[in-house]
Amino acid sequence: MGAGNLMIVQGGGPTSVFNASLSSAIEEATSQPGIGRIYGARYGMRGLVNGDVVELDQLTAGELQLLHDSPGAALGSSRHKPSDEDFDRMVATFRRLEVRSLIFMGGNGTMRGASLVSERCRKLGFEVQIIGVPKTVDNDIAMTDRCPGFASAARYMAQSTRDLGMDIRSLPQPVTILEVIGRSIGWLAAATALAKEKDADAPHVIFLPEKPFQADKFLADLDAIVTKLGWAIVVASEGILNSDGSLVYELTDPTHLDPLKRPMTGGVGQFLAEMVGEKLKIRCRSEKPGLIARAARAHVSAQDQKDAEMVGRAGVRALAASETEKMVSLLPLAHSGKRGYELVPLTSVSGVERKFPAEWIQEAAIPVGKKFFDYVRPLVGDLTPYFVRFTN
Amino acid sequence: MGAGNLMIVQGGGPTSVFNASLSSAIEEATSQPGIGRIYGARYGMRGLVNGDVVELDQLTAGELQLLHDSPGAALGSSRHKPSDEDFDRMVATFRRLEVRSLIFMGGNGTMRGASLVSERCRKLGFEVQIIGVPKTVDNDIAMTDRCPGFASAARYMAQSTRDLGMDIRSLPQPVTILEVIGRSIGWLAAATALAKEKDADAPHVIFLPEKPFQADKFLADLDAIVTKLGWAIVVASEGILNSDGSLVYELTDPTHLDPLKRPMTGGVGQFLAEMVGEKLKIRCRSEKPGLIARAARAHVSAQDQKDAEMVGRAGVRALAASETEKMVSLLPLAHSGKRGYELVPLTSVSGVERKFPAEWIQEAAIPVGKKFFDYVRPLVGDLTPYFVRFTN
Repeated sequence: MGAGNLMIVQGGGPTSVFNASLSSAIEEATSQPGIGRIYGARYGMRGLVNGDVVELDQLTAGELQLLHDSPGAALGSSRHKPSDEDFDRMVATFRRLEVRSLIFMGGNGTMRGASLVSERCRKLGFEVQIIGVPKTVDNDIAMTDRCPGFASAARYMAQSTRDLGMDIRSLPQPVTILEVIGRSIGWLAAATALAKEKDADAPHVIFLPEKPFQADKFLADLDAIVTKLGWAIVVASEGILNSDGSLVYELTDPTHLDPLKRPMTGGVGQFLAEMVGEKLKIRCRSEKPGLIARAARAHVSAQDQKDAEMVGRAGVRALAASETEKMVSLLPLAHSGKRGYELVPLTSVSGVERKFPAEWIQEAAIPVGKKFFDYVRPLVGDLTPYFVRFTN
Repeated sequence: MGAGNLMIVQGGGPTSVFNASLSSAIEEATSQPGIGRIYGARYGMRGLVNGDVVELDQLTAGELQLLHDSPGAALGSSRHKPSDEDFDRMVATFRRLEVRSLIFMGGNGTMRGASLVSERCRKLGFEVQIIGVPKTVDNDIAMTDRCPGFASAARYMAQSTRDLGMDIRSLPQPVTILEVIGRSIGWLAAATALAKEKDADAPHVIFLPEKPFQADKFLADLDAIVTKLGWAIVVASEGILNSDGSLVYELTDPTHLDPLKRPMTGGVGQFLAEMVGEKLKIRCRSEKPGLIARAARAHVSAQDQKDAEMVGRAGVRALAASETEKMVSLLPLAHSGKRGYELVPLTSVSGVERKFPAEWIQEAAIPVGKKFFDYVRPLVGDLTPYFVRFTN
């Protein structure tokens, strides 16, 4: 590895363990003789473009620990898509700061960005090493067993489903719709199934974006559950679709598009609650913890935290081993090797979106079973058990 | 105290420490020689009316601990308002089970119910002791310094505001409205101010039901904050009112009335988010953890748990001391006596709603100051501190 300085970038949506990756990467980089200064780009790609960077090698051990334990993206993040001119300005930043290696921490968009930066640097004859470190609560990065951030958000949603179930079964409202983030992918909504131990436990129905939503069937099923139990909790992924592929609920105001021109999701819970009230004449609340799910440090999963630390360190070690244009990929927990990760080509990740396995989805109110649980339970860890005996 | 059996009733909305009161009361009652069997009414008043009761003296130490640590109302709760005939059936239940003492755990509605049961028993010549044990996240019971359940829900909301702030400042959405439960009272929304340490921290604006909401002023203030910081978190109590006293947002469908014919609150966050999008052309999310706030055991405050245990035990001790028609009232933390509670007449509580002190409300985006913080901080405890240096 050539002598030179390191630049770290955080991109995309934050998680509760994103900074654990950052903190671990800084710590590892400090101990690598081949790495000089350690810089961070403020607000992702935008920091690279504008030369808006901070020094990370001055942080004390105490500050690194606090950083490690803080949710969000401490450097600031963005969904900025660089233009041609932007890339030239980035390379100017690298030259000015003598940056010879970069770590891009993020999801699919960030990995695509890392590939583009790498490509552009090659074209401009600027020699630089680039390593991707995965992160996303959506668990949709290809070529890795799991994505740091997902399991903690899953834990928040599963435990909150169980908590809410304890409330609603105590004083039936009687129905509550619980909306879950995750855009067009159902990992987080599916994880709420972990809350359920017995048939009567919440959740009673889960809607994933991968299975078309049918209002008539939903209302009939819900009616039957409420008749039997006297209460129900229905989990709805924010991105559930009608059979024609349109979103069940969508904010149409273009103001709410994100920088990638995607519509703002969210609101389907309240929409379904109003439908239940109108059609079934049953009182129905809706709850939507939304982004709190990816920011709540109180629900961080032990495995997720370990993963986040590992990928951060592994990214720096890959640089030290003269690797470039690779992403750190987590191996399944059951793998037999010594290391829990491997390196995969950035090109094999970039532009590919990992789907929720179709074969894990079943025709049932709780649309996931053993295969999903075998995968997700060790990642999320045990939920807090509760006393249930006297209520339905 | 006459020999006889004890009946425990849980009424109104559950909390995360309601069962700590129940568990402590059972434990205390088991050690009182004057108390025979210990019964619990299933689903509050309804259990008394229907004779639907469970035995609580069979619970093992392990079960009592699990009960103690479980959110909700383990016996089941209700908002049932007994009719004349209902009262006669209740007394029949008491006679059949040789119940000579009752503990009513709950909020204002439950204390009113306890008074009515007491009155009716006297009229019918049925001798019974009745003690009220306070509980409500709304903190609106009169004659007590605080209500068990409030501080833990406040802690959930304050910590979640801080967590969400870390997310939004990392990747500005840029605005998020955070809706808070509490009906017509602002205690829980006000408590989110605890999340803020520096000016730039969330929350940036808090709307309480006690202060009329003015849309124009809100939009102008918000615009200024977003211009300065690039992001903002606005906390809105679900029950905020227009200057004419009408709810800012209300579900009008009568299906959503609760058993007390009150409209279902909730939804004002999404309503405000759409207003911000439309008027300011700023992307605006809304989050609504709703009832999760009163069910999340991960955020229980140490003082709240202690209070919940104390009022449960104190209720039973009051029975042992031959008291009746009293409610256990928590004394201020700074009081000088040996015990942390006293007994107050049920009649002084029943039908009275404690308000948020008008003199604690100030004209500012964060409408509470030192007096409120001096009161609430020791109840909620320290929040988890986070690393903030590089983001706005």
